[in-house]
Amino acid sequence: MYRYRLMAPGPTPVPDSVLLKMAQPIIHHRTAAFEKIVEKVREGLKWLYQTENEVLMFASSGTGAMEASVVNLMRKGDRALCIDGGKFGERWADICQAYGIEYDVIKVEWGSAVDPKVVEAKLKEKQYRTVFTTASETSTGVLHPIEELAKLTRDLPETALVVDGITALGVTDIPTDKWGIDVLVSGSQKALMLPPGLSFASLSKKAIAFSEKSDLPKFYFDFRQELKSIQQNTTAWTPAVSLIVGLEEVLRLMKEEGLENIFKRHDILAKATRAAVQAMSLKLYAPEAPSPAVTAVYSPENINAGEIVKGLRDQFNMTITGGQAQAKGKIFRIGHIGYYDPMDIVNAIAAIESILIQKGHDVKAGLGVGAALEVISKN
Amino acid sequence: MYRYRLMAPGPTPVPDSVLLKMAQPIIHHRTAAFEKIVEKVREGLKWLYQTENEVLMFASSGTGAMEASVVNLMRKGDRALCIDGGKFGERWADICQAYGIEYDVIKVEWGSAVDPKVVEAKLKEKQYRTVFTTASETSTGVLHPIEELAKLTRDLPETALVVDGITALGVTDIPTDKWGIDVLVSGSQKALMLPPGLSFASLSKKAIAFSEKSDLPKFYFDFRQELKSIQQNTTAWTPAVSLIVGLEEVLRLMKEEGLENIFKRHDILAKATRAAVQAMSLKLYAPEAPSPAVTAVYSPENINAGEIVKGLRDQFNMTITGGQAQAKGKIFRIGHIGYYDPMDIVNAIAAIESILIQKGHDVKAGLGVGAALEVISKN
Repeated sequence: MYRYRLMAPGPTPVPDSVLLKMAQPIIHHRTAAFEKIVEKVREGLKWLYQTENEVLMFASSGTGAMEASVVNLMRKGDRALCIDGGKFGERWADICQAYGIEYDVIKVEWGSAVDPKVVEAKLKEKQYRTVFTTASETSTGVLHPIEELAKLTRDLPETALVVDGITALGVTDIPTDKWGIDVLVSGSQKALMLPPGLSFASLSKKAIAFSEKSDLPKFYFDFRQELKSIQQNTTAWTPAVSLIVGLEEVLRLMKEEGLENIFKRHDILAKATRAAVQAMSLKLYAPEAPSPAVTAVYSPENINAGEIVKGLRDQFNMTITGGQAQAKGKIFRIGHIGYYDPMDIVNAIAAIESILIQKGHDVKAGLGVGAALEVISKN
Repeated sequence: MYRYRLMAPGPTPVPDSVLLKMAQPIIHHRTAAFEKIVEKVREGLKWLYQTENEVLMFASSGTGAMEASVVNLMRKGDRALCIDGGKFGERWADICQAYGIEYDVIKVEWGSAVDPKVVEAKLKEKQYRTVFTTASETSTGVLHPIEELAKLTRDLPETALVVDGITALGVTDIPTDKWGIDVLVSGSQKALMLPPGLSFASLSKKAIAFSEKSDLPKFYFDFRQELKSIQQNTTAWTPAVSLIVGLEEVLRLMKEEGLENIFKRHDILAKATRAAVQAMSLKLYAPEAPSPAVTAVYSPENINAGEIVKGLRDQFNMTITGGQAQAKGKIFRIGHIGYYDPMDIVNAIAAIESILIQKGHDVKAGLGVGAALEVISKN
């Protein structure tokens, strides 16, 4: 009898106190009581985003807030620059395509981070209204150099930077205002330790100015409407009340831990995971710019990565994820974003070690776990 | 000390067993375990909708599924006919406007239902791609004659009927297939007894054919993507996992009660409410076509309706809602949609009676409650 263990890069486990808050009788959203919650959450999101600007909330998954960023920042005839280094980077171009927006794509090899010089050259070549990028690319386990990208756009009055921070916010230091990110998109089911169904977007002054000039069609995802609403501690449409009630508790927990400690914890979990898989003679998929949210690992050559995922599921009641698209069968991915402590990493590594040994991979039992423990105890 | 009582027409109370289901540890959405839940929910929604076609699910509030219906059924250059008899009917035209769609509006006086003859005449006059209407108009407490409207469109191969059934589905008999409704939109926070954050749309064969020809921009709300996904017991984007887990339990509860009993219960609650307010010498706002989901009531001439709403809040810890827009201050609205039994109506009426007496309205204590009880005990 193994308890269920969710070790995927989202949805991620929800703390008990949050589950219990959300299990309380529902309240009406057009009441002073709920507005007080929104006011707290609004202030807490600013703290988490490290911004003095507003952070909008949508009842949708993260893709909704991505679409919102495209349709609110772009105008008809504008050109977008999309950085695509994986399944989630790809989505920016797909959204532009759906809205008939002209775009160029910087294709980045899976497992690598974008080279800011390539972006810089592109920005000199053409006039782009917005650069769309991913911070932590969940499909490859790569962390892109957002600070460097923001340096390229923040002083350009006619070019904004939109960052998919869905698996970066609350994991690693990504100070919205200090770096000059115009829109930082996030979702509830990652570092925010909630069920999926809420998404977020911060808006810089530049982003607000762009949204006022945008002429693309939109209704549910209208930044101007939501900005006006959040300033009155409400939302334009019926909000996901229970998730917002949970968010209040999540932000309380996060403040209690403190931003620096949160970033440090994720860093240790990621380092422990990387040390462990390497000690088991496995190769990292993104060795040069690994994300602190998820570790992508090559399966041994003679073992399909899907077999490892299945083994963990069937023998250990544990969910990790395999590779997507071109990485399918080749890699598996261990999530360590959100409500995890070092013992969760020990569990995941122990299970992977056990399956690898069963599948005939040449590794001595305990090597992986030992390497993880060494990183953990040093920190 | 009064316990909190939510008597608004949505969000509505969530049954304890549903709250507890949703408070269980979250599971990953790309797993066989979750697909089994989606399979059950998919089948349950077909039962509730009385349809053999698919019902799509979106992580959004109801407005999202309304927008989805517009952008998936219409093509550039098509004309829409919007029936507007309140705040929610109005929204159809607003969405068409946002997407640059040509539309005509049939304005219906607040408190009245649309006359199918007016719609029939319009349909003879011009070619409309879609008729957009509301079933139960929450802002006025009116139930529109959907069966009659469906008769006008169901044999027209080039005109579809889209119905906002957000406060009608699971309240009153609205058999999707039998009547020939092409898209019936709904939301989680009404008769489905869940927190807000999930929306639904059924698709007739005509609606599917229209969606295949539609050329309006869309991404998150793409019917074709979601149709393909639901046929594989999944969703295109990360679903609102906890709400779907709750939905499984809700559908179990609803099946246990049975459709006919559910409709009968709502009918009794509505009749009891109407009898009670009339016994208190109050006038109904929608006497001719009252919705079984919500009862809208004129406040006595010398009492602002907002005062009654406030009195219930402050003295009885109870939420009902006032009027919106042109009905603001004039009416108050009592919700009886979803998880309510006759005693909830007794409570609401008792509280309203008490406030009315305090405000100097000439009514004998017990008259309203007595009238409600009479309806209840006769049924």
